[in-house]
Amino acid sequence: MQFLSDNAARVHPLVWDAMHRADAPDVPYDGDALSQRLDAVFGDLFGRPCAVLWASTGTAANCLALTTMVQPHGGVICHRESHIESDECGAPGFFLHGAKLLLADGVGAKLDVAGIEAVLLGITRGVHQVQAHAISITQVSEYGLAYAPDELAAIGTLTKVHGLGLHMDGARFANAVAYLGCTPAEAAGPVDALSFGCTKNGAMDADAVVLFDPEQAELVRWRRKRAGHLHSKGRFMAAQILALVEGGLWLELAAHANAAAAEIASGAGSRALFAPQSNELFVRLTPTERTALRAQGFAFYDWDADTARLVCSWDTRQEHATVLARALAAL
Amino acid sequence: MQFLSDNAARVHPLVWDAMHRADAPDVPYDGDALSQRLDAVFGDLFGRPCAVLWASTGTAANCLALTTMVQPHGGVICHRESHIESDECGAPGFFLHGAKLLLADGVGAKLDVAGIEAVLLGITRGVHQVQAHAISITQVSEYGLAYAPDELAAIGTLTKVHGLGLHMDGARFANAVAYLGCTPAEAAGPVDALSFGCTKNGAMDADAVVLFDPEQAELVRWRRKRAGHLHSKGRFMAAQILALVEGGLWLELAAHANAAAAEIASGAGSRALFAPQSNELFVRLTPTERTALRAQGFAFYDWDADTARLVCSWDTRQEHATVLARALAAL
Amino acid sequence: MQFLSDNAARVHPLVWDAMHRADAPDVPYDGDALSQRLDAVFGDLFGRPCAVLWASTGTAANCLALTTMVQPHGGVICHRESHIESDECGAPGFFLHGAKLLLADGVGAKLDVAGIEAVLLGITRGVHQVQAHAISITQVSEYGLAYAPDELAAIGTLTKVHGLGLHMDGARFANAVAYLGCTPAEAAGPVDALSFGCTKNGAMDADAVVLFDPEQAELVRWRRKRAGHLHSKGRFMAAQILALVEGGLWLELAAHANAAAAEIASGAGSRALFAPQSNELFVRLTPTERTALRAQGFAFYDWDADTARLVCSWDTRQEHATVLARALAAL
Amino acid sequence: MQFLSDNAARVHPLVWDAMHRADAPDVPYDGDALSQRLDAVFGDLFGRPCAVLWASTGTAANCLALTTMVQPHGGVICHRESHIESDECGAPGFFLHGAKLLLADGVGAKLDVAGIEAVLLGITRGVHQVQAHAISITQVSEYGLAYAPDELAAIGTLTKVHGLGLHMDGARFANAVAYLGCTPAEAAGPVDALSFGCTKNGAMDADAVVLFDPEQAELVRWRRKRAGHLHSKGRFMAAQILALVEGGLWLELAAHANAAAAEIASGAGSRALFAPQSNELFVRLTPTERTALRAQGFAFYDWDADTARLVCSWDTRQEHATVLARALAAL
Repeated sequence: MQFLSDNAARVHPLVWDAMHRADAPDVPYDGDALSQRLDAVFGDLFGRPCAVLWASTGTAANCLALTTMVQPHGGVICHRESHIESDECGAPGFFLHGAKLLLADGVGAKLDVAGIEAVLLGITRGVHQVQAHAISITQVSEYGLAYAPDELAAIGTLTKVHGLGLHMDGARFANAVAYLGCTPAEAAGPVDALSFGCTKNGAMDADAVVLFDPEQAELVRWRRKRAGHLHSKGRFMAAQILALVEGGLWLELAAHANAAAAEIASGAGSRALFAPQSNELFVRLTPTERTALRAQGFAFYDWDADTARLVCSWDTRQEHATVLARALAAL
Repeated sequence: MQFLSDNAARVHPLVWDAMHRADAPDVPYDGDALSQRLDAVFGDLFGRPCAVLWASTGTAANCLALTTMVQPHGGVICHRESHIESDECGAPGFFLHGAKLLLADGVGAKLDVAGIEAVLLGITRGVHQVQAHAISITQVSEYGLAYAPDELAAIGTLTKVHGLGLHMDGARFANAVAYLGCTPAEAAGPVDALSFGCTKNGAMDADAVVLFDPEQAELVRWRRKRAGHLHSKGRFMAAQILALVEGGLWLELAAHANAAAAEIASGAGSRALFAPQSNELFVRLTPTERTALRAQGFAFYDWDADTARLVCSWDTRQEHATVLARALAAL
Repeated sequence: MQFLSDNAARVHPLVWDAMHRADAPDVPYDGDALSQRLDAVFGDLFGRPCAVLWASTGTAANCLALTTMVQPHGGVICHRESHIESDECGAPGFFLHGAKLLLADGVGAKLDVAGIEAVLLGITRGVHQVQAHAISITQVSEYGLAYAPDELAAIGTLTKVHGLGLHMDGARFANAVAYLGCTPAEAAGPVDALSFGCTKNGAMDADAVVLFDPEQAELVRWRRKRAGHLHSKGRFMAAQILALVEGGLWLELAAHANAAAAEIASGAGSRALFAPQSNELFVRLTPTERTALRAQGFAFYDWDADTARLVCSWDTRQEHATVLARALAAL
Repeated sequence: MQFLSDNAARVHPLVWDAMHRADAPDVPYDGDALSQRLDAVFGDLFGRPCAVLWASTGTAANCLALTTMVQPHGGVICHRESHIESDECGAPGFFLHGAKLLLADGVGAKLDVAGIEAVLLGITRGVHQVQAHAISITQVSEYGLAYAPDELAAIGTLTKVHGLGLHMDGARFANAVAYLGCTPAEAAGPVDALSFGCTKNGAMDADAVVLFDPEQAELVRWRRKRAGHLHSKGRFMAAQILALVEGGLWLELAAHANAAAAEIASGAGSRALFAPQSNELFVRLTPTERTALRAQGFAFYDWDADTARLVCSWDTRQEHATVLARALAAL
């Protein structure tokens, strides 16, 4: 019974089908019919024009999105525990040519206005200090918490005042939308560029860079090629993304994963660090308790000395979640 | 009848099968059983120890391989018409942090000792000039020509004398081996790092970086992650590569493509720029002749004003090659 | 008798005086009164608004100027023998984060419309190829030849048509103005950014980045600091530049150096590769002849197997030039 | 009465003299007799072989030194308030091609073993996280505090255990040596590369990169040229450095500045954040008190809302320090 990570899940059967259907010669790179359809499909999804490019990893999607708003001498305000800071091995420094991550604080790995302003207030020495060019937030955060529309609006106001770009790492954007029960546009709020994750939600290896200023696509296209991320058979990535987004499969899968996490939370009770807002749950467990759970067949990662991380995915079996909930309640 | 590019071909059925078999939860990134088997499989193939990492594009494979031998202040001697110079949108400059490509001449887009030495002789002004750190050759070249083992040996001697690394872009390495009728080790010669292409030869999106100094794998691992090329479900790339290499499918497919090109060459006669040594053929054709061929249903790219490029692949149908050969002979 | 290089000449006494006068505490970096005066002084010199920043080397000045017009994924069209290509150890690749130099041909190391268009015509494959973002020309060229105003206008028209920036490496801009007998504005033509050289013309270590779009100064200021080129006592560089430019010393010194070169040319006769247009002369000399000249006390560099380079500077003594002219005539 | 910064001080007369003496044609760049003498002079100073290269700013010296020990995918552990983190506008990210600064804590902006180990313990996720390649410490720290030899030894042990390089930003190294009363070798401890500051201690614009592994000089030479920091008349920088180091002027000047700070501290009493260990003093002062002091003619910077920074230099007049001490005591 696997609760290690949603990025270890299987590929959804409908995604496989779409990939097979894409297996006919077409224009290479992103000139094929599927890749060409992305802009319109996401335009409909978000209710406003956007340009959409596939990328084969979330790290690439995040960093390519950031190239539209951060100069090499600039900085990105992000949470101290964000993925771009902690889990991408300095990829932003590479793609952004040495630009700096400016670390902010906030509960549950979410940025808030106070945390962002604290960073901005520390930038006082003109040319001697790196200036912020953008803010990057994660929907849902590293603790699985969602930004509500009003929280996004408050951050959006800040970016306007300070002339900053706004990026959203949406590796689990689907889980946020499913939890918030709002439209994708509301869950994205005022962001300029969104990394729309698919790989943790049924795809094999495809995320989407969604640019709400379509003119930025030109820049990202050059940067993507230059980073070795322009696949010659890009149609297979487009097929994965379309299989999930068209028809709403992406939200069904996310809702399933969220429900499994909620069920586990019901068993975890007050051990949970936060009430779950997505498919991730962080639970206080002693080493002995973890050993006991693993002996019962549950696989999961330690988060830190006191906490375990339990992640559900589209293919988590409901009965596994139920059993785990009971096991937690019985501790 | 499609002769546009081998990178537009379909995915081979056995590759699909292998990908489906890989679709079970496993250790993410490259910790899975398939990725872990690559070193041994390629070690057997080349008869010497090597470390092997997957990459989803040839550009990424080339540039990651070059990071093992070129410092940011160094240069790479390559052919003026090589892929890294002409078709990667400056990716080497990005991955190598501004290192320079030092352009050499040679017939058929192949480097030779004279061309390389001409570049080296021009580097005379010490710290004012970029120094060569490596040589990069393409097996087969952009004109589809193969380096014979003695040609590789001569270049290898040069690299030893001058303390340079040697990289081989093997996007069509399979076609070279099939043409030369030698072992993979002989077709690689004294190279330090090889980009072993699979995407043009039946795979969906997987090339292999083969490091004959296995200790360099450590470096490439960091650089790959940092470039956003560490897939969380890397097992699907490993599956593609293994499906081709284990059992020898890669060579069968390349031999098929080569044979199709040879058949077309028999019809092209003296119009061919070079006798074909792989799956590519460059044929002198007037605009009128091209129009006539296209009207007969043949799809291909113009190479330049006087020449068309005809590319066969693993799924080129033999009868299409025959028809094209006849059409060329009839011009 | 030294004809090695103008960058080995002494510092002019009036430059020394200005530096000594600057030796009083003032606002550090570029906040001092002298640095603050540069914009106005160069605005007067060129008859239009500009922003001016000092830099301690020509390489830094060139590369900082180019940051205003070239993105990391772009390219700079320059002459195959230009200083940025041949003598800056890849500095443009460093400052521009991997951008590429696109090499053009032209007589006497000068670019012309045909040479530039030949490069542009070769850029046809969209995202697979580096696109030109700027053109860089050298006034005077590596062979000491000046661009006449109409030549500059023709290149300027090209940049407009293709949406390119135009940079001028003016390490010896003073010599060009002195030779052309035109205004500085005419010798700069339609350039967007000029590296205005002082170090080869009486200064110790100060060149000026002249930005004819003053809004670009903001960008260069960040990039200069980030490259370690923001001196805390920048007033000493400003003092050097002002000592040369205010009052016209820069042109007097250049005219002197040009005259010395012209005198030598009169002795060299048809041995000269080009009639001199500045302070540099390239003269065909056999190894034996060079040995003979060196035995007479003349110091100079070999340019290539057949040619010697003779460089005069502000402190070349007229009688040394006369003696050298006679020695050449007597060969 | 100026206590703003030691980098706003005048150039020492003996430095001027040395620069004037250097004003004769010599081999350009760093081939001149003065530049060539640096290795030997610093070898004597530190009692062991070293290679020494000039750089015109402390930022350049720091970043060039770090290139010998940090790969683009690595990180540098430094104090949260260090100059490379806070005052160099991201220059380390530029020179090190996106490498990351890993921020540690410690009293008085000094690193200690606990602070460094806290950073190292947080690096647990392999290829997903930037690994430390080096530690950078500042002698004296941003609060003017010196590392004692035993503190350096403890950090040195850590670097050995973890295979890290050790860099010292010695912008005020002279003040540390003067305070500690030890040899330069003892004040440098086990560092691999030292930025030896001169600009804040009587020079115009010259710091020295001291490499205790002389073989690293080769690398730094390339990187220096490529960063536009190879002056054609480098002899003037060498002259400044030699004027200070040969004969011990550097230590006399630092001792003078330290003494002035100590005198001021005697007046500041318990208002001083730390007992002074160099030429800098941080004093708690209310806004009203600062206004009063400024009205008496004292110029100084605010450090933060509660603290003023008072900096003495080689040309601080003793009587000014005395007057300031009295003014502080009288508050």
